[in-house]
Amino acid sequence: MAMELKATKNFTVRFNETDSMGIVWHGSYVTYFEDAREAFGMKYGFDYLTIVNQGFYVPIVDMHIEYKSMMRYGDEGRIVITFKNCDSAKIIYEYEIFNRKTGKLVAKGSTLQVFVDMNYELVISSPDFFIDWKIKNGIKNQ
Amino acid sequence: MAMELKATKNFTVRFNETDSMGIVWHGSYVTYFEDAREAFGMKYGFDYLTIVNQGFYVPIVDMHIEYKSMMRYGDEGRIVITFKNCDSAKIIYEYEIFNRKTGKLVAKGSTLQVFVDMNYELVISSPDFFIDWKIKNGIKNQ
Amino acid sequence: MAMELKATKNFTVRFNETDSMGIVWHGSYVTYFEDAREAFGMKYGFDYLTIVNQGFYVPIVDMHIEYKSMMRYGDEGRIVITFKNCDSAKIIYEYEIFNRKTGKLVAKGSTLQVFVDMNYELVISSPDFFIDWKIKNGIKNQ
Amino acid sequence: MAMELKATKNFTVRFNETDSMGIVWHGSYVTYFEDAREAFGMKYGFDYLTIVNQGFYVPIVDMHIEYKSMMRYGDEGRIVITFKNCDSAKIIYEYEIFNRKTGKLVAKGSTLQVFVDMNYELVISSPDFFIDWKIKNGIKNQ
Repeated sequence: MAMELKATKNFTVRFNETDSMGIVWHGSYVTYFEDAREAFGMKYGFDYLTIVNQGFYVPIVDMHIEYKSMMRYGDEGRIVITFKNCDSAKIIYEYEIFNRKTGKLVAKGSTLQVFVDMNYELVISSPDFFIDWKIKNGIKNQ
Repeated sequence: MAMELKATKNFTVRFNETDSMGIVWHGSYVTYFEDAREAFGMKYGFDYLTIVNQGFYVPIVDMHIEYKSMMRYGDEGRIVITFKNCDSAKIIYEYEIFNRKTGKLVAKGSTLQVFVDMNYELVISSPDFFIDWKIKNGIKNQ
Repeated sequence: MAMELKATKNFTVRFNETDSMGIVWHGSYVTYFEDAREAFGMKYGFDYLTIVNQGFYVPIVDMHIEYKSMMRYGDEGRIVITFKNCDSAKIIYEYEIFNRKTGKLVAKGSTLQVFVDMNYELVISSPDFFIDWKIKNGIKNQ
Repeated sequence: MAMELKATKNFTVRFNETDSMGIVWHGSYVTYFEDAREAFGMKYGFDYLTIVNQGFYVPIVDMHIEYKSMMRYGDEGRIVITFKNCDSAKIIYEYEIFNRKTGKLVAKGSTLQVFVDMNYELVISSPDFFIDWKIKNGIKNQ
């Protein structure tokens, strides 16, 4: 059975993340997702700088966000990020954001990242360090 | 035959829209989409303030973005927004962003908005002003 | 001797806070300052929502930032915020941001806020709750 | 008599530039200033990329903003940027933002930039290209 790698990150809604409607601006969730990826990377040794030091950027090529309920300034959220394994040279994360006080689902979504080299050329095969990282963390390709 | 309502908006990549990779940060496209909705609203009398004055907010409940090529600081883009009609009380837009110089597709995506009243309660049926707006603009429900 | 109220807030530079130069975009410090005000408010019962519940907004009318050294993605900072008392109906904070690893001063600055009522009309005299808050926290007007 | 170089840039307040107070977030003015510098640079051949191509970054080391009146979503502003000459290796701009409809002053401020090389080392003397640019534009050091 495949193990799923997860990380969680708590946050409090910042004033500048809200908009004239008085709720969190939908674009702010992109930052919440980014914070979650960072928390995940820190936990599992797969953060942005580690990847760059291996000679790769990992730009996002697909992002999907569903908004389920609203958050306001000062609300406290928890974001859960899950690494979804796939055989190709892709990094897929799924995200769920909850209101910490009510437990309510606030938003969910996913991102897809690819590997490019320092000249921004697409890397077709999984880099060795990525395969090694998967093995080390008990993620097996089928 | 159904007419499709479209608007276009030109933009130049701002310095603060880029990131450490030297390319436009993926979250900046949320703002480009928002600018496109605004351009559309201004062209067709369907802008945010007009909607608020009718007693509704139209929060985004779903957003999807696909990134096809990169933009850098100073690059010139064109965003094309298309209103996709549907029978229910929803506002669906599709977006395409092109590099104005190369003509290359940079990104595409979609957003889905619903109507809520000033207490943020979901409005199930299309508001009258929305139906009127559709008729006035030659959009027919099937 | 007047006591000085201070709060500190640690942070890690987010990816989207950097720019094409590879350093933290100067505008990101506005958010760091805001986070510091929030940390201060939470510590001393003087946060934004508490103030709003008293019937006031406290817009910033003056902001000054000096940039002393650069921060990059992943750098760890500490921001120290100090409440500077003055007799009039103003809220003055001073800020210092340090690199947590090197101890180096990264930036310093100040903000000045005034009180406006819910119609955005300027409030000339210190609101009672503000005077009470000062007394409770050992801050004496001269 | 010294000529003053000026540029102007019109803008419309974006939805995501506002906050829960319903007015433009004070940090958004940093972006307005940046847009103004860009407009200035484009007008006078002194834009960011031109400077980078000469081998320099010009980080902001001091920024001051005074907020005089509020702007809301959809308001139309005009920003006037003025180059303030000084003998040393510094770039100083002053900014004034007006509400285009009312003519009212919305904000004013200034920024100070220095020259650093591509290793972020401070450049003490004015780079040749900067002196040439000044001469070409009729700006004389005293």
